[in-house]
Amino acid sequence: MADSEALPSLAGDPVAVEALLRAVFGVVVDEAIQKGTSASQKVCEWKEPEELKQLLDLELRSQGESQEQILERCRAVIRYSVKTGHPRFFNQLFSGLDPHALAGRIITESLNTSQYTYEIAPVFVLMEEEVLRKLRALVGWSSGDGIFCPGGSISNMYAVNLARYQRYPDCKQRGLRTLPPLALFTSKECHYSIQKGAAFLGLGTDSVRVVKADERGKMVPEDLERQIGMAEAEGAVPFLVSATSGTTVLGAFDPLEAIADVCQRHGLWLHVDAAWGGSVLLSQTHRHLLDGIQRADSVAWNPHKLLAAGLQCSALLLQDTSNLLKRCHGSQASYLFQQDKFYDVALDTGDKVVQCGRRVDCLKLWLMWKAQGDQGLERRIDQAFALARYLVEEIKKREGLELVMEPEFVNVCFWFVPPSLRGKQDSPDYHERLSKVAPMLKERMVKEGSMMIGYQPHGTRGNFFRVVVANPALTCADMDFLLNELERLGQDL
Amino acid sequence: MADSEALPSLAGDPVAVEALLRAVFGVVVDEAIQKGTSASQKVCEWKEPEELKQLLDLELRSQGESQEQILERCRAVIRYSVKTGHPRFFNQLFSGLDPHALAGRIITESLNTSQYTYEIAPVFVLMEEEVLRKLRALVGWSSGDGIFCPGGSISNMYAVNLARYQRYPDCKQRGLRTLPPLALFTSKECHYSIQKGAAFLGLGTDSVRVVKADERGKMVPEDLERQIGMAEAEGAVPFLVSATSGTTVLGAFDPLEAIADVCQRHGLWLHVDAAWGGSVLLSQTHRHLLDGIQRADSVAWNPHKLLAAGLQCSALLLQDTSNLLKRCHGSQASYLFQQDKFYDVALDTGDKVVQCGRRVDCLKLWLMWKAQGDQGLERRIDQAFALARYLVEEIKKREGLELVMEPEFVNVCFWFVPPSLRGKQDSPDYHERLSKVAPMLKERMVKEGSMMIGYQPHGTRGNFFRVVVANPALTCADMDFLLNELERLGQDL
Repeated sequence: MADSEALPSLAGDPVAVEALLRAVFGVVVDEAIQKGTSASQKVCEWKEPEELKQLLDLELRSQGESQEQILERCRAVIRYSVKTGHPRFFNQLFSGLDPHALAGRIITESLNTSQYTYEIAPVFVLMEEEVLRKLRALVGWSSGDGIFCPGGSISNMYAVNLARYQRYPDCKQRGLRTLPPLALFTSKECHYSIQKGAAFLGLGTDSVRVVKADERGKMVPEDLERQIGMAEAEGAVPFLVSATSGTTVLGAFDPLEAIADVCQRHGLWLHVDAAWGGSVLLSQTHRHLLDGIQRADSVAWNPHKLLAAGLQCSALLLQDTSNLLKRCHGSQASYLFQQDKFYDVALDTGDKVVQCGRRVDCLKLWLMWKAQGDQGLERRIDQAFALARYLVEEIKKREGLELVMEPEFVNVCFWFVPPSLRGKQDSPDYHERLSKVAPMLKERMVKEGSMMIGYQPHGTRGNFFRVVVANPALTCADMDFLLNELERLGQDL
Repeated sequence: MADSEALPSLAGDPVAVEALLRAVFGVVVDEAIQKGTSASQKVCEWKEPEELKQLLDLELRSQGESQEQILERCRAVIRYSVKTGHPRFFNQLFSGLDPHALAGRIITESLNTSQYTYEIAPVFVLMEEEVLRKLRALVGWSSGDGIFCPGGSISNMYAVNLARYQRYPDCKQRGLRTLPPLALFTSKECHYSIQKGAAFLGLGTDSVRVVKADERGKMVPEDLERQIGMAEAEGAVPFLVSATSGTTVLGAFDPLEAIADVCQRHGLWLHVDAAWGGSVLLSQTHRHLLDGIQRADSVAWNPHKLLAAGLQCSALLLQDTSNLLKRCHGSQASYLFQQDKFYDVALDTGDKVVQCGRRVDCLKLWLMWKAQGDQGLERRIDQAFALARYLVEEIKKREGLELVMEPEFVNVCFWFVPPSLRGKQDSPDYHERLSKVAPMLKERMVKEGSMMIGYQPHGTRGNFFRVVVANPALTCADMDFLLNELERLGQDL
C-alpha cells in the first residue's frame, strides 16, 4: 500500500529545499566562484590519492547524512578540486569562468530536460536551431544543418559516419562488410579522436591515412594528394579528409583552401575539426586563419574551449540541406517520435542523433552571447591573441626560455632551460636532461598550487610546456607571473 | 598590443559576478524550483513555435545586452520551458527534482572540469571509481570496471564495441571488413538505441536479430536459442545478447537467468540494458526482477531516470578485470596521458572512453546518495512501485479506463475510453477511433498545462497512455488527480 504522503526527502518540503539550495549556492559563490577565480588563492590543492580518499570519505552507506554533513561535503569537494576558472590555469584548451554561461548552466540543470522533442524542450529546440544558424553564418553558410554533440570527439565521429553514409547509404543497414576498404585522411597533428572514431565506427585505425605536416604543424596538401593516390592504388576508396583548424599542441591551422581543392578534385567529403580554432571565426582580424572553411561539408566547433561556454558545448555543423543527419541516424522510435502529434514533428530533432536523451547544451552559449554580443566575444578572441603575442615577446627577452616556434594561435610552446643546462646545447645528454625539466616543474607548481601548465613531447622534440592563453580574465600581469614563477620554481635545476 | 586590464566582461569584477549570479539564482529558485515543482502551477505553458520564437527573441546580435535584459531572458526561458520536476510530469522515464542531486549539478557546473585525468579532476576520478564500485556491488560484483557515458544509448554502444573487440581484437586496427558477419540478439521490445548503435558501429542494422517477446514484453529464451541457430546456419557469428531490464513502453524485465544460460551455452557476451530498471536493484522487495544480472558481462544503468539524479547520468558497468575498456578504446595521446607524470597514471581514466573531454556525472549521484543513504533510495523505489500499484487499482475501479496489462514495474499503460466509445468494443471502427483519443487528450492537457503523459502505439495495439510513476515527490493525490483530469478532459469525446 502506498503512503499517502510524499517521501520524507526534501522533495516534499519546499522551504527546506530552498534553504538547502541557498546554503549550497552560498558555498559555491564563496569557494568556487570568488576564491576559485582569485589570483591570490591556489589553483589547486594537491593531495596524494590515498590521502584524498581519506579526506573525502567517499563510501556510500546505508544511512543518509544530515544537512550540515552534506554542506561540509560540498565544501570539501570544491576545496580539493582544480579551479579551472582560475587565472593561473593554463593546462587545457579551456579556462576561465564566464558568469553568464554559468548562469545558463545553472538554469539548464534546474530545468533538467532532454533535447529530443519540442514537446518537452520547446525553448531549447528553437534555441539550438538559432545558435546553430549563427555558428553556420560565421562559417559562411546561409543554410545547412547541425546538432550539439557530447564533445568534439563525437562530433568528429558524426562527420565520418555521415560521409560514409552519404557515399554508401546501404551501410546503415548492411554494415561495412559489403563495402570496399575505405580510407580517410588527416594529418599527423590531428586530434587523437580521429583514430578513436575510426576504430569505434568499425573502420579500423588502418583506414586512417596519416598525411605529413610541415614544420609549423600544418597539413601538406601535396602529401594529401599523394596519399590519396597511394590509397587508391592499394584498392581503398578515399571518402573523407579531416583538416584541423587549431591543432591540439601547436595550435596550427591547416591550409583549408588548398585542401578543399584536393577534396574537390577527388570528390571527397571535407570535414574541418575546428573544435579548438573555430571560435577565431568571430575575429575579423584573425579569421583569415580559417579561410576556405566555407568549402567544408562539415565543421566541428567547441565553444566550450576558447569561448568558455562550459563543458560540454560542441557543435557539429553541416552544409547539407537534404536531411542527411536524420536519414543517417534516424530510427523512428514510435514511442517518442509519434507522427500524430498536434504540432509540426519536424521540430522533434532527437532522431538526428545516435543518442536518445541528450543534454541541453545551447542555453549557456546563447545567454553568454546575448550578454556579450558578437562584439564582446570578438574582443575576447582578439585579447587572447594579443596576450599570447605579449607572452611570446616576453619569452624572447628572457634567458633560459626557448620558443618551440612562433605561434599563430594562442598555444605558446616553449622550453624552460634551467640554469644548469644553459649554454650546454652541444652536450650529448642535453635533450634527455631538458626533457625531464617540464615534468619536474609541473610537479612543483601543482604541489605548490601556484599554477598549472601542460607539457608534452612532440615528434622528436622532448617535453616542452604548452601555455594555453584562453581565460578571458587574463591580463599581462598573469603572463608576467607565469614566467617569473617558472624561473622561481626552476632556479635550482 | 594587449590591454593591461582584463576585458570589461564581468570576469574581471568579482562583485558584479556575484551580484549577477545571486540574481539569476533567485530567479531559478522562485521560477524553476518553487513554482516548477508546485502542483498549483502549470507543468508547461504551451506556445506555438512561431509565437514562442517571437516571445524569446532568440537572435544573436552584434551588441551585448544589459543585466536587466539578461535577467528577463532567464525568466522567459524558465517560463516557457516544461517543468520536468513537476508532480504532473509523467511523460518520460525521468521526473522530479532531487535537491541534493541539483546541488551536485550546480557544483559540477561551477567547477567545470573534465573527467580525463587525476591532474585536473582529482576528486572526481576517485569519486567516479567509488560510485561505480557501489553500482557494481548492487549488481553483485565484487570487482570489475566501468565508466559514465553520455546517456544509455552510448553505454549500450560501448557494450557492443567491447564484445566485438574481446572476440576480435584485430578489428580495432583492421576494421570489420576482414571479419565474418556478426550477429547480435535483442528482443523486439528493446530500446531503439541497439539498432542505432549497430548502424553507427558499422555492423549495420541487419546484424541485429530480433527475438520474440511474450505478451508481457519479455524476451522468449527459446526463440533466442532458435535465432542463434538460424544466424549460425546463415554463416553469421553470434557474439552478443542484449537483454532489457525495464523496457521503455511496458516496463518489462527479460528473464535474465534463462538468457544467461543460453549465452553460456553459446559463449556469447551478455549485456543487460538496465538503463530504466537498474535502480530496482536498490529494493530488497523488487530486485528479484533482475535475478541473474550478476551473470552479465556488462550492464547499462541510468541513475538519471528512476533515481532522478539529473540528465545525464548513465553508467556502463563491466565484470571485466583485464582492462578491456582501456585496451579497446585507448590511443595513448601523449599530450594528455603523459607516462612521466609524478603520480600513478592509472588514475588517468580518460583513455577508457571514445570521448576526449568528458563531463563529470558522478557528483550529483554521489551527493544525493550521501544524503539519502541506500535506505532512502530504497524507500523511494518501493514508494514508486506502491504508487504505481495504487494507480492500477484505481484504474480498475473506474469506468472508461482499460489496462493494457498488469504492470510489473512503474510504467502503467492503459486506454482512456471516452463516453462515446464505451460499450462499442464490437463496432468495426472502435480501435481506429480509440487510437485517436490519446493524441487528442494529449493536446488538451498540454494546452491547458495541467499534466503531461506520453502515449504511443505498440505492436498491433493502437495509441494508449503510458504513465511513468517516477517522481519521488508523488503521492496518491497525484494519482487521483491524473485520473480525474483525464476524465475531465475527455468527457465530451
